[in-house]
Amino acid sequence: MRIAALSEATGLPVATLKYYLREGLLHPGTATARNQAAYDDGHVRRARLVRALLELGNLQLADIKRVLAAVDDDTVPLHDAFGVAQDAMVPPRDRDTSAYARALGDVDVFVRRNRLHVRPDAQVRGMLADALVAMRSGGWDLDLAEFDARMPAIVAQAIAELGSLPPDDRAAQMEASVIGTISYEVAIAALRRLALEHASWRRFGR
Amino acid sequence: MRIAALSEATGLPVATLKYYLREGLLHPGTATARNQAAYDDGHVRRARLVRALLELGNLQLADIKRVLAAVDDDTVPLHDAFGVAQDAMVPPRDRDTSAYARALGDVDVFVRRNRLHVRPDAQVRGMLADALVAMRSGGWDLDLAEFDARMPAIVAQAIAELGSLPPDDRAAQMEASVIGTISYEVAIAALRRLALEHASWRRFGR
Repeated sequence: MRIAALSEATGLPVATLKYYLREGLLHPGTATARNQAAYDDGHVRRARLVRALLELGNLQLADIKRVLAAVDDDTVPLHDAFGVAQDAMVPPRDRDTSAYARALGDVDVFVRRNRLHVRPDAQVRGMLADALVAMRSGGWDLDLAEFDARMPAIVAQAIAELGSLPPDDRAAQMEASVIGTISYEVAIAALRRLALEHASWRRFGR
Repeated sequence: MRIAALSEATGLPVATLKYYLREGLLHPGTATARNQAAYDDGHVRRARLVRALLELGNLQLADIKRVLAAVDDDTVPLHDAFGVAQDAMVPPRDRDTSAYARALGDVDVFVRRNRLHVRPDAQVRGMLADALVAMRSGGWDLDLAEFDARMPAIVAQAIAELGSLPPDDRAAQMEASVIGTISYEVAIAALRRLALEHASWRRFGR
């Protein structure tokens, strides 16, 4: 398909697609004439993935490129590639405070207690610790043990999600898994915000 | 306190605090001598809020300024100010596709069916629609009705959260509510990612 059809298929303006191509976020099409190229379903899927990472994930270009590299490197076993993609989805950040060290310790205890198989250096541990530090700094003294009872349901949901990945090629599996990770968590966050607005109306708005 | 003590209290480097001051994200301290100013607890709280919005929320400076304006404008009733802050936490975005229109319609039906009191033009509706569009583009055909059963628990949690806001001044309530909104959703997202890594290990890693 031409770039106009790619735009139609993805809902992305041609200018945005050209930006993705220029930044190397989308691989070049097959040249068919001077200034003309043909794109395929792989481009459609990739453009959707980049859009989700940029717009929903708010990731920086450098982090998106790390995710895409993990998606594309099929010399790495699938489970390891998921780990690389998951790590790339956590923005790097300076963290060297004692509050962070304490929170990270709490996360490690939580992971062990819930028997989760998560790499010791998985970046998501830092992501959870960052959230804990922010909560505590805002006066919310959250104890991760409050989540213990909910973890079995969250794990069951995650297993079902991976079980419904498309059975075709590896890139499609990786892409669907990354889009699923990011878009599902934005959906959950939005549901929480709907509930918060409703709760604010009940408490302060009547 | 001097800026060094503010840095100690917030865990933020002095250079970062000076950046916040320069960008108007933090109000100036009281001048005590040439090139010296005194800061108070209000600065500590504000610096923590800005950090959460920047680092956890990944918000742009312009959006953070809109959140801060809602926090500070005490001529607006509290419930309305929450709404303004909530709207500012959803990044503006171009959305004019038919997929988006369909998703937004689904969100509106969901809100009505669950009897949620949410403003018709609340930006969070668009946030949920964006997540739906991304999921569907990635091959996940989510039906929002799947969340109906979970909404009562999410609403109960939101009511408990607002009920535990600090009872002191309005700015402190607004700040705690914004930090709570953002950090809690990052925590939930991180728990989901821990579960996904565990699920990937079970499915692909053994």
